[in-house]
Amino acid sequence: MDRRSFLRTSALGGGAAAASTLAAPAYAQGKRTLTMVTTWGRGLAGVHDSAQYCADAITAMTDGQLTVELKAAGELVGAFEVFDAVSSGQADMYHAVDYYFLGQHPALSFFSNIPFGMTYQELNNWYYHGGGQELQDQVSEIFGLKTFMAGNTGPQSGGWFNKEINGPEDFQGLKFRMPGQGGQVLGKLGASVQNLPGGEVYQALSSGAIDGTEWIGPWADEKAGFQEITKTYYTAGFHESGPGLSLALNRDLFEDLPEFQKQIVEQAARAGNNWTMSLFMANNGSALQRLQSGGVKIMEFPDSVWDAFGSASAEVVQEPMDDPLYAECYESYMQWLKASAAWISTSEGAYSKQRNRVLGI
Amino acid sequence: MDRRSFLRTSALGGGAAAASTLAAPAYAQGKRTLTMVTTWGRGLAGVHDSAQYCADAITAMTDGQLTVELKAAGELVGAFEVFDAVSSGQADMYHAVDYYFLGQHPALSFFSNIPFGMTYQELNNWYYHGGGQELQDQVSEIFGLKTFMAGNTGPQSGGWFNKEINGPEDFQGLKFRMPGQGGQVLGKLGASVQNLPGGEVYQALSSGAIDGTEWIGPWADEKAGFQEITKTYYTAGFHESGPGLSLALNRDLFEDLPEFQKQIVEQAARAGNNWTMSLFMANNGSALQRLQSGGVKIMEFPDSVWDAFGSASAEVVQEPMDDPLYAECYESYMQWLKASAAWISTSEGAYSKQRNRVLGI
Repeated sequence: MDRRSFLRTSALGGGAAAASTLAAPAYAQGKRTLTMVTTWGRGLAGVHDSAQYCADAITAMTDGQLTVELKAAGELVGAFEVFDAVSSGQADMYHAVDYYFLGQHPALSFFSNIPFGMTYQELNNWYYHGGGQELQDQVSEIFGLKTFMAGNTGPQSGGWFNKEINGPEDFQGLKFRMPGQGGQVLGKLGASVQNLPGGEVYQALSSGAIDGTEWIGPWADEKAGFQEITKTYYTAGFHESGPGLSLALNRDLFEDLPEFQKQIVEQAARAGNNWTMSLFMANNGSALQRLQSGGVKIMEFPDSVWDAFGSASAEVVQEPMDDPLYAECYESYMQWLKASAAWISTSEGAYSKQRNRVLGI
Repeated sequence: MDRRSFLRTSALGGGAAAASTLAAPAYAQGKRTLTMVTTWGRGLAGVHDSAQYCADAITAMTDGQLTVELKAAGELVGAFEVFDAVSSGQADMYHAVDYYFLGQHPALSFFSNIPFGMTYQELNNWYYHGGGQELQDQVSEIFGLKTFMAGNTGPQSGGWFNKEINGPEDFQGLKFRMPGQGGQVLGKLGASVQNLPGGEVYQALSSGAIDGTEWIGPWADEKAGFQEITKTYYTAGFHESGPGLSLALNRDLFEDLPEFQKQIVEQAARAGNNWTMSLFMANNGSALQRLQSGGVKIMEFPDSVWDAFGSASAEVVQEPMDDPLYAECYESYMQWLKASAAWISTSEGAYSKQRNRVLGI
C-alpha cells in the first residue's frame, strides 16, 4: 500500500503554525493513491454511488493529491472482508454499512441501525450534536479504524416475499435474507435467516435458496430486479429505519494525514451523507409507481406482525447489554431517539399533516 | 477586495492536466482572505453558527489558502445589503436566507421557502437530484452570483403573539414581523407586516412597535429572548416549512477559483446544510421544554386559520407567475413536492407511526 511509504514528517507532526508554513512542501511530496474497498457490487444503485461520491469528493478537493481508487466487492477483497482489510492495513478505507460486522462489536448497530431505531434526521441529530460521533470513535478505535457517517438509505422496505404475511406465524421456517439485529429478530420469529451481500441476493432468491429478502427500497430494489421473481412487496419495515453508511479509514493512515486533508475526508463524508439520502428519497417514489404498474402488489404488515417485531426487537436489542460500551451507546441513543421523535412530531408532523390536508396531497 | 488582485493564470485556466501539474505552484501564490457578509447578528443561534461553519470549513479544507473572514450583519454592510454587496463585488460571499431579497427576483422563494412549501428532505431531493440546483444557478447568474444551499432551520414555529389566534379575523390590524411570501400572506389577512432582520426583532417586540413575530424555532427563539416579552407561542407554522440558507459567492470570484477550490466551496456548503439542520433539530426539543417550564403557553392554530393561510398562500404563490423563470421553478418545485411527500408518507410516515405506537413514544 502507498500509505506504508508515507513519511510523517516532523513538520506535519508538529504544531499548527509549523504545519501551516510547510503546507506547500507537503504538497510537493506528490500524489498518493488510496484504495477504497466496499461491500457493494458496482451494479448496486445508491450504495455504490454513495461510495463513489465520497471517493470522488476526496480526490477532487485534494486536487488529486489523495486519489481514491474504488474497488467494489470482490475486486480486491470480498464484501464482508472489508472491515478486516482496512483494520489490518491491507486496504486504506472502506464504504459499507456496519451491521455487517456485528461479530466484531455489537455497538456497530447504533451507527448503522437497530430494529425500531432512529430515522435519518434523528440519527443525524444524535450523531453530530448529541455525542453519537464520539461514541462511534470509541468503537472504531478498538479496531484501528477512523469512521465517519457517509450516507443513509432512508427507511428501508419490509421486503419481498413469496407469500403474504398475515400474522407472525408466517415467518416460521421462512428462509429470509436480512442482516444485522433485524435478522436476529426474524430468527426469534422462527425464520431461517441468511446474511448475504447485496450482489448475491438476486441469484439466491431466483434459485429458491431463500424464500424472501429485504434489500433497500423501491429504487434500489427495482434496479436489483427482485420484481422479476416475486410480486409481493412490503414497503414499511421495522428493521432499518434509516441506516447510516460508513466511511472508515485505517486509523494510522488517517492520523498521518495533515490537518486540512483530515478535514477534507470528514466534510466529504458529511456532504455524502446528505447527497446519498436525497438520492434514495428522490428516486423511490417514481420507482414504486413503476413497480406497481408492472404488477407488484404493495403491502403493509398488519399490527399483529408489527407487535411481534416489537417484542422480539426489545429482546434482541437488550442481549449485548453486558458490553459496557454497547450499554453506553444504547442509553445515549434511546434518549436522543425519544427527544428527536417528540420534536419532529410537534413540528414537521403537525405541519405536513396540515399542508397535505390544505393542498389535498 | 483581495479577489481583485487575484490573477487567473493561464495554467489554472487551462485543461485539467495542466492545472493538476501546476497545483503546487498555485499554492505557492500565497493565501487569500475572502470576506463573508451575513444577514445574521453574532448572537443569533444556529444561523450565525451555520455561516461560521461554512467559513471555517473552507478555511480548514484549503489549509488557509482561502481564509474566510466573517462579517456579521452591520459589521461591514447591513443585514439586507449583503445581496447587493456580493453582487457588486464589495464583499466576496454572503450567508443568508434568500427570501429577504424577493425584490430582486421572486423565484428566490423556491430556494428559501414558499408558504405551504417543502420540508427539508423534500427540498434536498429536488435541489440535488431534481433540477433545483440548476434552476437556482439560472436565477443567481442574473445577479453575478454563484449560490449553494448551505443550511436549513427545519420547520419554523408559527410565532409569538400578544394574544391568542382563534380565527383568521384575529390577524386584522396585527403588526407582525414575517419576511418573504409568508409575510405577503399575512398581509392578505389584514395584518400590517414588517420585514425586520433578526437582530432588530427583540427591540421591536419589546417596545410594542410590533404585536408579534415569527423567528425560527424554540431554540433560536429562546436565545433571542422572546419569552421575556410574551408567553403565547404557536409551534407549527405555514410560512417556513424548511427554509434553505444560502451561501452565495460573487460569480467572477468563484469562476476564478481553481477547480479543486470550487469543489471545496460546494462540498462545504453541502456538509453545512446537513450540520445546520441537525443543529436546530437537536436543540429544539429541550428548548421547548424549558420554554414550557418557564410559563410559555404552547399553541396550535385551529383548522380555520390553516384554511385561511391556505387560500391566501395560493394567491400569493401565483402572483409572480408572469415571470417565466419563476413559472418554471414553480412547476418543477410543485411536481417534486408532491412526489416526495407521497413517498415520505408511505415510508417514514408509516414507519414512525408504527414505531411510536410499539415503543409507546
